[in-house]
Amino acid sequence: MSIIETSTNTLVSTEYPLDQWYVAGFGSELTTQLLARTLLGQPIVFFRDETGNIAALEDKCCHRMLPLSDGLLEAGKVRCGYHGLLFNSHGKCVQIPGQDKIPSKACVKTYEVCEQDNIIWIWFGKDTTSKPTTLPPQYIFHSTPEFLYDMGKYHYKAPWQLIHDNLMDLSHLGYVHLKTIGGDANTHMNAKMRVDVEDNKVKVVRHMLDSTPPPTYKAAWPFKGNIDRWQEIEFMMSHIRIWTGAIDANSDDINNNDRQGFHMRGFHGVTPETATTCHYFWSMATNPVHDKENIKTKVVDQTRLTFDEDKGVIESQFINMTRFGHQPVIDIHIDTGANQARRLVKRLCDY
Amino acid sequence: MSIIETSTNTLVSTEYPLDQWYVAGFGSELTTQLLARTLLGQPIVFFRDETGNIAALEDKCCHRMLPLSDGLLEAGKVRCGYHGLLFNSHGKCVQIPGQDKIPSKACVKTYEVCEQDNIIWIWFGKDTTSKPTTLPPQYIFHSTPEFLYDMGKYHYKAPWQLIHDNLMDLSHLGYVHLKTIGGDANTHMNAKMRVDVEDNKVKVVRHMLDSTPPPTYKAAWPFKGNIDRWQEIEFMMSHIRIWTGAIDANSDDINNNDRQGFHMRGFHGVTPETATTCHYFWSMATNPVHDKENIKTKVVDQTRLTFDEDKGVIESQFINMTRFGHQPVIDIHIDTGANQARRLVKRLCDY
Amino acid sequence: MSIIETSTNTLVSTEYPLDQWYVAGFGSELTTQLLARTLLGQPIVFFRDETGNIAALEDKCCHRMLPLSDGLLEAGKVRCGYHGLLFNSHGKCVQIPGQDKIPSKACVKTYEVCEQDNIIWIWFGKDTTSKPTTLPPQYIFHSTPEFLYDMGKYHYKAPWQLIHDNLMDLSHLGYVHLKTIGGDANTHMNAKMRVDVEDNKVKVVRHMLDSTPPPTYKAAWPFKGNIDRWQEIEFMMSHIRIWTGAIDANSDDINNNDRQGFHMRGFHGVTPETATTCHYFWSMATNPVHDKENIKTKVVDQTRLTFDEDKGVIESQFINMTRFGHQPVIDIHIDTGANQARRLVKRLCDY
Repeated sequence: MSIIETSTNTLVSTEYPLDQWYVAGFGSELTTQLLARTLLGQPIVFFRDETGNIAALEDKCCHRMLPLSDGLLEAGKVRCGYHGLLFNSHGKCVQIPGQDKIPSKACVKTYEVCEQDNIIWIWFGKDTTSKPTTLPPQYIFHSTPEFLYDMGKYHYKAPWQLIHDNLMDLSHLGYVHLKTIGGDANTHMNAKMRVDVEDNKVKVVRHMLDSTPPPTYKAAWPFKGNIDRWQEIEFMMSHIRIWTGAIDANSDDINNNDRQGFHMRGFHGVTPETATTCHYFWSMATNPVHDKENIKTKVVDQTRLTFDEDKGVIESQFINMTRFGHQPVIDIHIDTGANQARRLVKRLCDY
Repeated sequence: MSIIETSTNTLVSTEYPLDQWYVAGFGSELTTQLLARTLLGQPIVFFRDETGNIAALEDKCCHRMLPLSDGLLEAGKVRCGYHGLLFNSHGKCVQIPGQDKIPSKACVKTYEVCEQDNIIWIWFGKDTTSKPTTLPPQYIFHSTPEFLYDMGKYHYKAPWQLIHDNLMDLSHLGYVHLKTIGGDANTHMNAKMRVDVEDNKVKVVRHMLDSTPPPTYKAAWPFKGNIDRWQEIEFMMSHIRIWTGAIDANSDDINNNDRQGFHMRGFHGVTPETATTCHYFWSMATNPVHDKENIKTKVVDQTRLTFDEDKGVIESQFINMTRFGHQPVIDIHIDTGANQARRLVKRLCDY
Repeated sequence: MSIIETSTNTLVSTEYPLDQWYVAGFGSELTTQLLARTLLGQPIVFFRDETGNIAALEDKCCHRMLPLSDGLLEAGKVRCGYHGLLFNSHGKCVQIPGQDKIPSKACVKTYEVCEQDNIIWIWFGKDTTSKPTTLPPQYIFHSTPEFLYDMGKYHYKAPWQLIHDNLMDLSHLGYVHLKTIGGDANTHMNAKMRVDVEDNKVKVVRHMLDSTPPPTYKAAWPFKGNIDRWQEIEFMMSHIRIWTGAIDANSDDINNNDRQGFHMRGFHGVTPETATTCHYFWSMATNPVHDKENIKTKVVDQTRLTFDEDKGVIESQFINMTRFGHQPVIDIHIDTGANQARRLVKRLCDY
């Protein structure tokens, strides 16, 4: 029995885990401008305050509802573009032009934000008093010396969990991504796979030993011939980490976490925009040994190409789900990881 | 009292006659590719199997709902573009890459299809066990030696019965199609008309004796002067046959089925896509005596122009129906045939 | 407590005051063509009859619902573009081609229309028997010798009352229209304001004494230095009159209705199209003393620019209202006029 099968509500859920950190974007997106982004159904305006810290306010002036993101950033405060009300990073209106008294209700909702590892994290609590008790997860590959990285983002016309399904099952590489990181379809479908479920984590490990290197791998690393290839996927609700790579076949123990060779460290922050749309923020870090910038650019460009392909498939899948409505589906061997991830999300929703 | 008047449900019905053959397209549309088409609300993928026969499957992989039409046709079978499941023309999954056992539920719904006279017919039964008891109707003018034909198709943003209304009443030629097959408006509106209702057929016959030949007629046939012109329309639910043509005025008995002169044999397969959209598959056959290919092309091109004009009118009519909602309308003399066709469709729905 | 706050229904009302004249457009829009326009949810076709008077019919043929505006204007009558029914300016079908008898029901609804001061006024009654008891309001600035004017129109994706709010509070000039008629924001927000409510009128008067002239003013009038500037806004449900202008600072009594100086007489006819869209017909008249056509053109062009800016703000405001749904808002000092206008509309609806 598949999770998708159990109910239409599961397929396109309007429930999201709360009391959680979600990815709101990359710190480098925010310079001197206002940034409007809807997350978990809530329109939010992001900006840097006087000290450079990121603030996040409800994107709606408390006076006549114009999006604050239509206004101007003035020295770390937001000026509404209709009647000029000025809001500070705490959501408090600090100026109403032409009026001395500022009503106590003249304020807008704020969100807890944390900028860390060039990732903007935002806390969505169960209620207005709920505050984060932990820092958001750390992500070292944006600052590991031997790694270079770049990033990108997508707006998806599909619910966020369809991206989880896609990322938790890399067997689709053989059919969707033949031209890039795919390689031989049979190798992918027949890879040995192990799925481990920890407390708030699902881990999928797949090994493709003695296999042909795909085009991206060949271009990025001086492999001698066949390769031992790994895919390690860690699902953590707010984001997924995908560690893929390869060593020359039989040159090292593939289970050794310190193995050498070619590495791709993918960060995948998937955050619901609405029940049927989502944001996908990704970065790709790699460890080139020569011609570093060039190879990093190639790896990131190839990655972007495969993500473009995924987007086409997933949005088409969702259109078809919408056309057919709730219908039973069958599961196959490669669905184990994705189904465990859906169970984890459901458990965190019910929590 | 008009049929349109009786209820909004009649105007835009979500009920269609079942246990019926419908037109799904033309055989020549299907070569080596997958063809996606939604008929009666059901997304279907069409393709040719190993023997060249046309297969029709529900357009949805039973695994994760991707449209099968996004996949690849592999030697008469369909390979899903996500995880590579392979389906044969009977809807059975015959391969799940990387998995030996194929679950018995790994299959998709199939449809009965019959390719005949270059028309693809598809059977929509009342339930899953309902099978056709007859062959679809024959249509000889795609293979009659003295006739040449060509065809076209439209996607209409309007319910199918508005096209029936249009085709059952050719008096609109005088207003909508002045530049092509129209001719004098008064001649059309004043034509003698006879409507006969048979078992599953409505027949409208109109004669315009001693009338001026319209531009298309003049271009296609060496008429000496005025013409005796006929329009014979046969409505059969799944399609409409329109036999129009003319002889030199007073040169023959216009009631004689073997009359000579200029003939246009129109096939009009109208099939609901949804309650508010439809497919319109048409062909036009004619009997040129000289410069055959050229004249056939002219007749078909002129026909296409008139059908473009009809589409503009009908889609605008439907937008207005939607804006105004259910409102009474009046009937005029030329509505008899169309109203009988609506009665026949209603009777077949209730059957 | 704001009017917007009281209920979502108030914010986007489907109720409009009836037994009222509304602005349907400008007389100069109607020459020899049919004009389709939906007002208060009712699709209407406007045209000039044989005598040049404007007629307004329901935009729907009584036969098969094609918009009459898709047809042809034939000597002051409308010919339907489908089957040729001909309607006169009283909505009566006077010809059914090919049929002698015209059923008594073959007619379409008509509307009372009055063309006056180059404005087309249309009466929307509470029921079909309700007739206007007064002429529409007069507007002399389309024919005052010392004034030149031009006009424009907008289709707004926002409910009509958001335009009222905008026009009743010109303090937004300082933030939305800095580049044109705005000038210094503080001057606008701190202007002395008086709001008077009369029977069916709300009047807002604002004075900005000894202030810097904005760019448009400088370009249009030879001011010597600072100016005494006035804004007089009269809200009358069917339209708003805005009289703005300025004299050299301390050169005359600004409360004197015969004051000299630079005048802009704005007419703003705002008419609901649907509950969430509206038409906005405006004209701007001014009194240049030299280089008249040029200065009029400049004033009108600048006006159009500011109205473009308003449209951007108001449509964005409405999108945000739709995203957030019903939410409380706060009022500030400058909302008094707009709130009184909303009260007047509500009172006229309940009347």
